[in-house]
Amino acid sequence: MTSNNSQIPQRILMGPGPSNVHPRVLEAMSHSMIGHLDPIFLEIMDENMKLLRQVFGTKNRLTLPISATGSAGMEATLCNLIEPDDDVLVCVNGVFGMRMSDIVDRYGGNLHTVDAPWGRIIDPQDVADKLKDIVKPKLIAIVHVETSTGILQPLVEIAELAKAHDALLVVDCVTSLCGTPVNLDELGIDAAYSGTQKCMSCPPGLSPVSFSKRAINAIHNRSTKVTSWYLDMGMISKYWGDDRVYHHTAPISMNYALNESLKIVCEEGLDTRYRRHSLHSQALADGLSALGIERIAQEGFRAPMLTSVSVPDDVDEAKVRNQLLHTYNIEIGAGLGTLKGKAWRIGLMGETCRRENVIGLLTALGEILPERSAAEAVQTAENVYNTSK
Amino acid sequence: MTSNNSQIPQRILMGPGPSNVHPRVLEAMSHSMIGHLDPIFLEIMDENMKLLRQVFGTKNRLTLPISATGSAGMEATLCNLIEPDDDVLVCVNGVFGMRMSDIVDRYGGNLHTVDAPWGRIIDPQDVADKLKDIVKPKLIAIVHVETSTGILQPLVEIAELAKAHDALLVVDCVTSLCGTPVNLDELGIDAAYSGTQKCMSCPPGLSPVSFSKRAINAIHNRSTKVTSWYLDMGMISKYWGDDRVYHHTAPISMNYALNESLKIVCEEGLDTRYRRHSLHSQALADGLSALGIERIAQEGFRAPMLTSVSVPDDVDEAKVRNQLLHTYNIEIGAGLGTLKGKAWRIGLMGETCRRENVIGLLTALGEILPERSAAEAVQTAENVYNTSK
Repeated sequence: MTSNNSQIPQRILMGPGPSNVHPRVLEAMSHSMIGHLDPIFLEIMDENMKLLRQVFGTKNRLTLPISATGSAGMEATLCNLIEPDDDVLVCVNGVFGMRMSDIVDRYGGNLHTVDAPWGRIIDPQDVADKLKDIVKPKLIAIVHVETSTGILQPLVEIAELAKAHDALLVVDCVTSLCGTPVNLDELGIDAAYSGTQKCMSCPPGLSPVSFSKRAINAIHNRSTKVTSWYLDMGMISKYWGDDRVYHHTAPISMNYALNESLKIVCEEGLDTRYRRHSLHSQALADGLSALGIERIAQEGFRAPMLTSVSVPDDVDEAKVRNQLLHTYNIEIGAGLGTLKGKAWRIGLMGETCRRENVIGLLTALGEILPERSAAEAVQTAENVYNTSK
Repeated sequence: MTSNNSQIPQRILMGPGPSNVHPRVLEAMSHSMIGHLDPIFLEIMDENMKLLRQVFGTKNRLTLPISATGSAGMEATLCNLIEPDDDVLVCVNGVFGMRMSDIVDRYGGNLHTVDAPWGRIIDPQDVADKLKDIVKPKLIAIVHVETSTGILQPLVEIAELAKAHDALLVVDCVTSLCGTPVNLDELGIDAAYSGTQKCMSCPPGLSPVSFSKRAINAIHNRSTKVTSWYLDMGMISKYWGDDRVYHHTAPISMNYALNESLKIVCEEGLDTRYRRHSLHSQALADGLSALGIERIAQEGFRAPMLTSVSVPDDVDEAKVRNQLLHTYNIEIGAGLGTLKGKAWRIGLMGETCRRENVIGLLTALGEILPERSAAEAVQTAENVYNTSK
């Protein structure tokens, strides 16, 4: 049996998450253990709720980290809001829309979908058309940044449609939160979930969620218990609320880390952070283009923290990923679902989103790929930085 | 907004978990982030599965940590094995038996219970009697150490009954694992779950589970999908198996910590660790008795890592707990459920289970409680240590 744990390499994490973690956050992870009802821990919980409200752009009281990873947040929002036979409309243009559909189906919802090709946004007109066929839609679910394609979905028109049809709107903010504006209250989003390991640059392990008053009312008015005990927001909210009723033992260290990472986000400022993500993704995209590597996501709707690209025909995608990892210590992501073997997913999230990583990856790809010029790619990226000054 | 995170105190964690965490494990938590499909991380996953098999006493291939806390492990074992209308027998003599009943009910199981007073074991004869009324029991669920009362449940006869009735046996090992023998294969237990924050002395955040071949067959033969997507063992096992199919992003740092804590457990040796828990709990119990504080759990069936005691009539229980925390930095647990306000739960789990903590708590209680002698309590505990030499 080897002793791997002491040999963790320093990777540059440019995949779809986890992203690199700030040393302050890693240090927070190593703080002493305290109890889940310790007054100091309760203060950290309260502070985490406040900080999460800031980054979500909401006053929602019920804003907290679910004690599991991002997909558990997806399940928590859906399973608390859906009862068997509720009509639910899920927008599907990638893996995570498919996952939402699967969950709706498992919990007995009456599933309707609006589909778009992978790499294209969901057309609000298609949603409007679909809604004409559904008498009483309980909920509309959509992904803000589809991590399988790098599409950034506009939400304003979808939110208006949800309001017009008196449907709850659930938005997957796993990849978008802290990298591009997520204004729950302004948009009128009723429930959202995220993950800590993307643009928040915290280790994976928690899933921040937020529920509006309308969403809470929907939970209160359920005629059936939520099937999942662990994700039952009614019980979870009693532990995170004033009553402090024991539900489960919260992941203490992960909450230390979340606290520190959210403080770092707020110290930088959300607008500065969004601009940083836009700038570096533009430099990356232009540099990749100079290498003959083109983006999959529809122009005008490209996510600033995740760039999905088509693998050039003359290239063995897995071999290049392995070379990047083993020779350059750079991780990028493979394609998912229908894009398996055909795409790379390059993340510039949170701490990872830095000029040296953009330049480093372009240099590495320029060196690895046949008949490409690393120098030209780097120069193209530098032009973006120079123009932005 | 305060900066609590930098002011975490050094508590002595003598509640029902989390327990104190070894500095090596805290250090592991702060290791650099790597990807959830990084070859180094895949090695750590494999090693964690091997180490978990050792502590569970099993060869079960499907032995891994669920990416959430202990209660999610409870839900994972039950929701994967139960289909709607299955007859399920749950043994209830405390909060965690009640919780299992709740989950069985939520997932549509046909719930039967065998009850015992809190602080008493489940009588196998009661289980045998109940089974006479159930034509085809799919599953029997029981708690090994009931954390609300400190009862250690004997499992041999229950396991024989399960076998005789061709029912799956699910055992809650949250508090028992690594503190008292848990031999899944020897006993014929089909599914078990635990938590990392008890006798393993790892931070909370993961729930080790193990499923036998019979249990896996039951999952394969389901006619319905598992309702919970996040806890669907069929999908989870594909990520932890050779295929490495992406399911969710594993909590990387928590798996580093689990790895290190399991190595510490194995370095000490399971038998040595069990003896250590027995010795210190005996010293604690005798010392408490000298203070006029008596145990709740039935004699002969007292768990060696969790001592539940009745709060003396002349004592304000919450005030004493607060004094212990704020003056002595010692956390003990309050009573749960029907024992709320009437009991203290004192944990001696993993790293916490040390002579200085036993002596420290007895001294503190002797000082806080009226008309008690700390010196006498300490001497009584010391007698246990001297006799054991």
